[in-house]
Formats: sequence, structure tokens, C-alpha cells
Amino acid sequence: MAEAFDAVDIIAVKRDGGVLADAQIDWMIDAYTRGAVAEEQMSALLMAVFLNGLTSGELNRWTAAMIASGERMDFSGLRRPTADKHSTGGVGDKITLTLTPLVACFGVAVPQLSGRGLGHTGGTLDKLEAIPGWQAALTNQQMTRQLDELGAVICQAGAGLAPADRKLYALRDVTATVACVPLIASSIMSKKVAEGTGVLVLDVKCGSGAFMGDLAHARLLAQTMVGIGNDNGVTTRALITDMSTPLGLTAGNGLEVAEAVDVLAGGGPADIVDLTVALAREMLDATAERLVAGSGDVKRADELRSADVEAALKDGRAMDVWRKMIAAQGGDPAADLPVAKHTDDVLADADGYLTSLDALKVGVAAWRLGAGRARKEDAVQAGAGVVLHAKPGDAVRRGQPLLTLHSDDADRFARAREALAGAWAIGPAAPVLTPVVMERIVK
Amino acid sequence: MAEAFDAVDIIAVKRDGGVLADAQIDWMIDAYTRGAVAEEQMSALLMAVFLNGLTSGELNRWTAAMIASGERMDFSGLRRPTADKHSTGGVGDKITLTLTPLVACFGVAVPQLSGRGLGHTGGTLDKLEAIPGWQAALTNQQMTRQLDELGAVICQAGAGLAPADRKLYALRDVTATVACVPLIASSIMSKKVAEGTGVLVLDVKCGSGAFMGDLAHARLLAQTMVGIGNDNGVTTRALITDMSTPLGLTAGNGLEVAEAVDVLAGGGPADIVDLTVALAREMLDATAERLVAGSGDVKRADELRSADVEAALKDGRAMDVWRKMIAAQGGDPAADLPVAKHTDDVLADADGYLTSLDALKVGVAAWRLGAGRARKEDAVQAGAGVVLHAKPGDAVRRGQPLLTLHSDDADRFARAREALAGAWAIGPAAPVLTPVVMERIVK
Repeated sequence: MAEAFDAVDIIAVKRDGGVLADAQIDWMIDAYTRGAVAEEQMSALLMAVFLNGLTSGELNRWTAAMIASGERMDFSGLRRPTADKHSTGGVGDKITLTLTPLVACFGVAVPQLSGRGLGHTGGTLDKLEAIPGWQAALTNQQMTRQLDELGAVICQAGAGLAPADRKLYALRDVTATVACVPLIASSIMSKKVAEGTGVLVLDVKCGSGAFMGDLAHARLLAQTMVGIGNDNGVTTRALITDMSTPLGLTAGNGLEVAEAVDVLAGGGPADIVDLTVALAREMLDATAERLVAGSGDVKRADELRSADVEAALKDGRAMDVWRKMIAAQGGDPAADLPVAKHTDDVLADADGYLTSLDALKVGVAAWRLGAGRARKEDAVQAGAGVVLHAKPGDAVRRGQPLLTLHSDDADRFARAREALAGAWAIGPAAPVLTPVVMERIVK
Repeated sequence: MAEAFDAVDIIAVKRDGGVLADAQIDWMIDAYTRGAVAEEQMSALLMAVFLNGLTSGELNRWTAAMIASGERMDFSGLRRPTADKHSTGGVGDKITLTLTPLVACFGVAVPQLSGRGLGHTGGTLDKLEAIPGWQAALTNQQMTRQLDELGAVICQAGAGLAPADRKLYALRDVTATVACVPLIASSIMSKKVAEGTGVLVLDVKCGSGAFMGDLAHARLLAQTMVGIGNDNGVTTRALITDMSTPLGLTAGNGLEVAEAVDVLAGGGPADIVDLTVALAREMLDATAERLVAGSGDVKRADELRSADVEAALKDGRAMDVWRKMIAAQGGDPAADLPVAKHTDDVLADADGYLTSLDALKVGVAAWRLGAGRARKEDAVQAGAGVVLHAKPGDAVRRGQPLLTLHSDDADRFARAREALAGAWAIGPAAPVLTPVVMERIVK
């Protein structure tokens, strides 16, 4: 493509509140990815997008141009339909670990191409790397084979997917253009669509520990992403779920793996079970919808819709897939998980009911304990994190351990405790609890 | 200064429509000038400023920070008060050449630190360089001495003045953030305040050949700059003047010098004389105001206010200063000016009155003939340009020369004629003419 466009003209259109032509979007994203449009030009455009928005037509084209910047995977050769889940990120969110083997029990392939954590939310790969021997990196061939045989893979996303997103994300990070719904939506969806899944269920977190603090913004983001997915041929749905308090009772890599294994063994905290089941049902239902619309296989669709998801958690079927999935990537599912060298109890300061426990503050504490990283090149501690001894609604007594901090470095406890200042409230009456799934967005 | 601020936080304030703290502005401009804030960060901030504006308090501080980025000249040692003029740029605008020696006749020093032209408006230095031997570059010492002895200097602005502006201007040029009143105002005023003048009169052009096409924008820009100047201790006023048609009868370097010399010899076109006189009176009146407020020299102030400016043009006093000023910088005021190798007449296509002659189109034609440059490193032709044989209001006859094009390259005539398509209108009745000075802005 010749340089038929001028970046300054394109920036000016969006600056003045106009609508970019498809060809302008295609050229801008392509030229930026190959370095013909300068960082400072793209950042001016991003700020104009932040302040003046994108129409849904522009956003679809913008996302399509990001997808076209790299390779696009193709799972059409698999014997199973594909369904993927993406979470916008939260504290204690180990749902990928329980959900992937669970959905695979029903003959659906789940290609979970994941990332590492940055900041206060943990990364799925960081969690699984707590398992001795487990390898995140697979070739496309290895991944496809594991999907075909097991129906479950959690691995590192290849660098070839949506390279425009990597450049744009790094740029947004230094130019205060991260918290922008169309830019977040196109970033997530370009990668997910490029991954080639047939079905995508989005877990859009809402609350203090999430990117979207309030329901209105979470809903807008969910609707925007569902629109992009469906417009790009991926059957896409979203659940808006609560992230005001950590999910489950653990935040930290090895600690979360252990909790996920509890759930796969038929136990574990109710919120983890509930969210895993809700997302699994949504993935199976969306796969059924897609089957009916595609091959017209109504019988198979009915099987998926009536699948007893809870039973597969209770009777060990999901655990079987988990063990095979971990072993297939070199991990030892029977090995002991690493534990931190030091622990420190944080005690309840009153009698009563725990009325709130702030997700963000617990997330920052886990991060400071060594579970997360401040810079991409940092290492994480497999054993570090926070264990909760009570959740909102539980009765607590003054002096009992409320949280236990875990770290290999005892000198990290002080700063973790600082992050926990004001993190909880204890009141005389049990609070009214909201269900973990707040809303379901289908179109 | 330690890196106590974070560029991302500062961008976010303006992105969200907030007001930047003085210390944030100081840090951002300083860190950008020394390279600690990246181009893409400043461009995001510039776009946020473009769309969300700056308060007058922010704008004053922003300008002050740009001034503080470099050296600030000091003319307090001169025996004369200083008064400067700045034009926002127009077609055929040779007023600096007539005004500088004229004002100097009255014991006021005029330090005209000027630039070269880019695009369709000519640069004052390009014009004077048409005079054999004339040198634009002076040391600060040479400049101060010439000012003290003659009261008149037109020379190249040193690179030490407001270096932040040079970086910001280059960045705005590639990020579609040029046409923004606070950014234009701070760019102009940072350089003018740093030049150390006591009085500044702004010639804000309005019309097709100017940056500000309509009166409302021109007024806003004028008021903004007058505010910045006065807040920074410079007695500042503005005239909004017509730039719908070229000033005088010439556009081009040597052609304009010749026309300025006509005016200094007591002749020349009425609009050039009128604007020169109006700006000179404004500069002398503002100097009088400043004298009264400062030393309280009411007698001297009265002399300046009652100065017979027209007489100094008619009786050769201004011409005397001109000749000395040109000679002081190596130029030969008696030398023949270079003429273009080729000319081409553009003929009137009807009988009647010339009702309009578009400044922008004439400016672009002169530029294409070789009078201006497309890139900073281009050379200009001393003899190239356009000579007008009629101005709006004049009677014309079909077939008479309306314009004569001048260029050293005959093959440039075709593209210049293209630029002139639709440049004039001829009607049955004489148009109502507007005076060259449209408005005066004092506070």
C-alpha cells in the first residue's frame, strides 16, 4: 500500500469529532505497526479517540485492522468446537484453572492463550508456573494437538497475534490513554478474535479490584466487546461479575493453584464454584447456539445445554482433564506446591460480621508480598500472597486471624500491611451479599 | 529538580478536564525540553489541551515555563525604551521593514527578532536577504549596540530563546495540534517576552490569507496574547487587521523590499502606509503609557503621543534610519535589488470593478513561483513573486494585466496560475471596502 494517507489529516478528523474512513483506519494501524507513523502521532490520535470516542463502525474497523496486523489462528481442523473465556482481571481470579478442564469434559476445546500479570492482578501463567515442571510456551502445533486430544490448553499467547496491540498497549501505558472503553475493547478483542475461537465468554469484572469500578462502565465495556466479537464472527457473550472483594480465599500464585485444585476435587469456596459453573454453562450454551446456526446439530446442542456441569466438578471428571493438561505441559500434578518461607497473621480488630474486604487493597498487598511484578522483567514468588480466613458475611472475633500474609522476604510484610490499611470493615450485623454474577450480556 | 512528577498523571489531569498545578506545568515543560518527557507523552498532553483548553492561569504559567526554558534578553541598559511588533503572518506583509525605522525616529528602540518564512506567508529575513550583502545573524552584543545607536534592528532570533517552543512547534506540526489558540498564543508570546521588549504591539491578521480566518478567532487570539503579555510585565496591545487581500501591491522578497522603500520615500500603497502609521502610533502610545507608569516622565510621554508619524515617512527621517540599519548589517541600501529572469502577465477576464483578490491564493502563487519554501532547508528566490496591478475597488478592463508573475524558472508559471484559479472577482459595481485596521485590543 502506497503512503496515500497523511497521519496529520487522520488525527485532525478525530480531533474535530469526525468519523474516520475505513481506509484511513486500515492505513493508520498498518503504518503505525510497521513504524511509518510515529509514536507521537499515534498518541495524539489515541488522546483524540479517548476524548471524542469511536463510533461502533469505526471501532469494528479499528479492531479488524489490529487483527490484520498479525497472524490469525485457525481451529477449524479440530474435531471439537472451540470456546474461550477472557477475564478483564481481578484479585484471586483463578477461574481459568477450574473452568478450562471443566468445559473440556463436555467435548468442547478450550484454547486459553494467557498472559502474565502486571500490577495488582495476577496472571494465569504466573499461577501455573508455581507447579513444578509446567511450561507455558507451546508451539502452535503442540497447542493444536493438545486441544484435539484433551480439549484443554492454557499456554502463552504467541507474539504473532495482533502485534499492533502490543505497540498500542505500551504507548497507551505512558500517555494516560489506558482507561478508554473502545481502546480496551479493541485491545482485548483483537487478540481474542485472532486466536480463532468460535465462542467467547467474557468475564467483565466490576468493583474496586477491577479496571471498571462501576456497573455502568462495566456494562458499556461488556456490550462493546460483545458487539465486536459477534460482528467478527465469534459467538460472544459476557457476564459482569463482582470484584469488590477477592474471589475465593486466596490471592497469590501457588496459593491459588491449590484452591483451584480443591474446587476440582469437589470442594472449595462457593464463589469460585458458582462463577466457574456460570461461565461453563454460558460457554456450553453459546457453543450450542453456534452449532445450531452452523451444522444444525440440534441433538448435540441439546446435550451441551443440558450438561450437568456441577456433577463434572464433583465426580472427578474435571480433575482428570486437569491432571492430563498439566502433565501434557511437563507439570507434575501430584507434586507439592511451593510455600513461602515466612507468614504473618493480620488480626481482626473487633467482634462482629465482616461487612467488606476490599479487593484492590488485598491485591496490592499480595503484589507487594512478591506474588506480582512492577515491571515486565521482574520475577514473581510462587509461594507469596494472601490467605483470607473470612469473607464478607462471616462472623469474626477480635484477635482472630483475618488474613495470613505469605512471602519469602519477611521485610515485605510492613509494606503489605500498609496496603491493607482500611481494607476491611467489621459491623454489628451481617451485610446483604450480592451474587458473584451481576449481569449477563448476550447482544 | 528531582523527578517528583509523573507525566502520565499530568496528562490525565488535562485529559479529564482538570486544572494543572503550576508545579506540574513547570516540571512538564522543563522535563520535555531536556528530553525526560517523551515526544509521545507531550503530544498526548497537547491533544488534551487542544480539546479541553487551558485556563488563563494555566496558560500564563505554561508560557512562563516556556520562557524559563531558555535565555531571556535584557534591554534595561539601553538609553531608549524598547517597543516591538509581531505579526501573525500574512501575504505581502512588509510592515516590519517600514515600521522599524519609522518608530526608531522617535527615540524608541525597536528590536525586531524575526524568522524565515514557511508555506505561503513570507519571512522578514527572507525579504531583507534580497538586499545585496545584508546579514541576518548578529551577536547579542552587536544587536544591543545597533539598538543603542540607531534604535532599529531586524535580525535573526537566537536559538537560545524559548527552546521549548522550537520542540513544541515541531511536535505540533506533525500531530495536528497547531490550530489551537492557547498553543499559538504561548508559542508567540514566549519568544516575544523572552526577547525582553518593554512594549509589544501585535498585528493579528484576519481573513483568508491569515491563520485566523474569522474575526471571532482573531479576537480570541489577540485577547489571549494581550493578556499573557501584560501578565508577564510587557505592555501589550493588539490590532486586528484585514488579510482577505494581499497588503500593498507585491508579494515576494525583493519585490516587497522595493515597495517598502517606496513607502519610506513618502510614496507607496495607501494600505501599507495606513497600517505602518497605525502600528507606529500604537507602539509610541504604549511606550508613553509605560513611561508614565514607570519613570513618570509625562513630558516625554506627551512627545511620543503627539509625534507626527506621517511626517517622518514623508520627510525622509524614516528612510535615513532604514539606510543606516541596512548598512549596519552589511547591506547596500543603494544597490539594485535582484529581479526575476522571467515574467508572465495574468489578464483581467472582464470589464468592471475588482471586488475581491484572495490573499491565500496570491500567497500560494508567490510561494510556488519561488518566493517561499516548502521545507526549512529550501532556498528562496530573491526576485520571485507576484505584482498586483489592481486592488479591490479599482476599475479594471478585460485584457489588462491584473497580476504579473515573477520567477527565475518559467516552468513554475503553470502551477502558480493553478493556485490563482478563482482568486479574484470582477463585478459591475465598486465594492464597499473595509479599513485595514478592523479592531484594537488594549486589555
